[in-house]
Amino acid sequence: MVYTCELIVRYAETDQMGVAHHSHYAVWFEAARTGYLRHLGVSYTQCEERGMFLPLYSMEARFLRPARYEDVLLIRPFIKNIEAARLVVGYQVFRKETSELLCEGTTQHAWTDKNMKPVNLKKLDRDLYGLLCNVWESGK
Amino acid sequence: MVYTCELIVRYAETDQMGVAHHSHYAVWFEAARTGYLRHLGVSYTQCEERGMFLPLYSMEARFLRPARYEDVLLIRPFIKNIEAARLVVGYQVFRKETSELLCEGTTQHAWTDKNMKPVNLKKLDRDLYGLLCNVWESGK
Amino acid sequence: MVYTCELIVRYAETDQMGVAHHSHYAVWFEAARTGYLRHLGVSYTQCEERGMFLPLYSMEARFLRPARYEDVLLIRPFIKNIEAARLVVGYQVFRKETSELLCEGTTQHAWTDKNMKPVNLKKLDRDLYGLLCNVWESGK
Amino acid sequence: MVYTCELIVRYAETDQMGVAHHSHYAVWFEAARTGYLRHLGVSYTQCEERGMFLPLYSMEARFLRPARYEDVLLIRPFIKNIEAARLVVGYQVFRKETSELLCEGTTQHAWTDKNMKPVNLKKLDRDLYGLLCNVWESGK
Repeated sequence: MVYTCELIVRYAETDQMGVAHHSHYAVWFEAARTGYLRHLGVSYTQCEERGMFLPLYSMEARFLRPARYEDVLLIRPFIKNIEAARLVVGYQVFRKETSELLCEGTTQHAWTDKNMKPVNLKKLDRDLYGLLCNVWESGK
Repeated sequence: MVYTCELIVRYAETDQMGVAHHSHYAVWFEAARTGYLRHLGVSYTQCEERGMFLPLYSMEARFLRPARYEDVLLIRPFIKNIEAARLVVGYQVFRKETSELLCEGTTQHAWTDKNMKPVNLKKLDRDLYGLLCNVWESGK
Repeated sequence: MVYTCELIVRYAETDQMGVAHHSHYAVWFEAARTGYLRHLGVSYTQCEERGMFLPLYSMEARFLRPARYEDVLLIRPFIKNIEAARLVVGYQVFRKETSELLCEGTTQHAWTDKNMKPVNLKKLDRDLYGLLCNVWESGK
Repeated sequence: MVYTCELIVRYAETDQMGVAHHSHYAVWFEAARTGYLRHLGVSYTQCEERGMFLPLYSMEARFLRPARYEDVLLIRPFIKNIEAARLVVGYQVFRKETSELLCEGTTQHAWTDKNMKPVNLKKLDRDLYGLLCNVWESGK
């Protein structure tokens, strides 16, 4: 179930300090998160088409070492908690060449409908809920 | 009818060359374009709510001098052409402090419905069409 | 000493959920943070020219309500802690029209040289350190 | 010498129209451009370290069909012109699944030093100049 998202730091993602700007980590977390879902056989596009959304309501990140232009990054997302109403995902970002840990982060999400009203995933999609619970358990 | 959009270059908009990355000019053009519509009494949010969209199908830009972090930019959009089916907008970007011209650009847009099917603005909203024609004429 | 940064949500900052994407809050926090320094008479551009950098090593944010396209946002940064080696800044983001609190966040920064080696702000720039201490004290 | 850059459209790259925002094409062009150089054995990072920069001074793009979230994009860059003072690169962006052409674009670049003063690539790096000329010739 282990999944790693591989990305190359884009020039546009650097800033005048010569490193990747911290705002892009939220974008990379997201790319890794939905890549992880795809890897598990879940298309977030299809989730949205079926009226299931997963907006983020909280995030935190610690930046240990800077990423630089053309660095190949490995982003490892993992489920930290799954409940009927919410999902918590953790992330580790590594520089592939050196295996250094660059950043750790967490995002918290609510299961909602299109209008951001909370829904109960356990009732709405028992299979998806079960799948995510299994992934969570197996990663403990 | 002259309108100028004032922006400050954000740190996140710089790149490791120490200048504002060129991809942000498209964002600034857009901020100036919809700011201009607001200035003319037209809310693009309301346009969308009424099912009128203005997707961009072509853009070009020439970059003459770099913009830098904390530069105050003046962006002057103007109507280059208005037709029932499309709108062409030009832009000039100046550094406020020095009055230097930094960038010139043009974007071409189609009037469409939500599904990007072309609509006839002249029939759909005669008032908006007339307003934009007047602005265009007065700027010639 | 109270400072508020006013921004309009750009179209490019929205996502297909119809709200401002959460990654932009880090950019807005930064715009507010350096706007606040400017307001206090401190140019971050000049800090960098003098070899003083303020990289971010941690951030967190809670998203309470979504911001939407063309919303006017008020961002209120405030100093949460200042030490010789680091600066902690808090933020509140409000929707101007409704005064609703949309987001709260915190960023932690280290004072460093160009190569991201820690420096002691108290020794390096006693005036700036004193100024920030005063602002912090007055806001308690 | 054919090179294709493969990217997946990120959620953060969509806008409230439900498509990838046009400003990201400039970023994707750039990822494809420097990926192409890497493919040719040229590291743009090393170019910059040696004091050779390639700032963009003009770009144009035509958007034929929208890209959507999770679309896999194929970006094919090609050299349109190479001279001692400048480089012109063309791009085609395809949706992998359907092979549809989504966007065509061109960027023009000057060879400069760190301070954006023009340099003569033919004199500065005869090998790189020769390599790019060969690629250009072979693609005609």
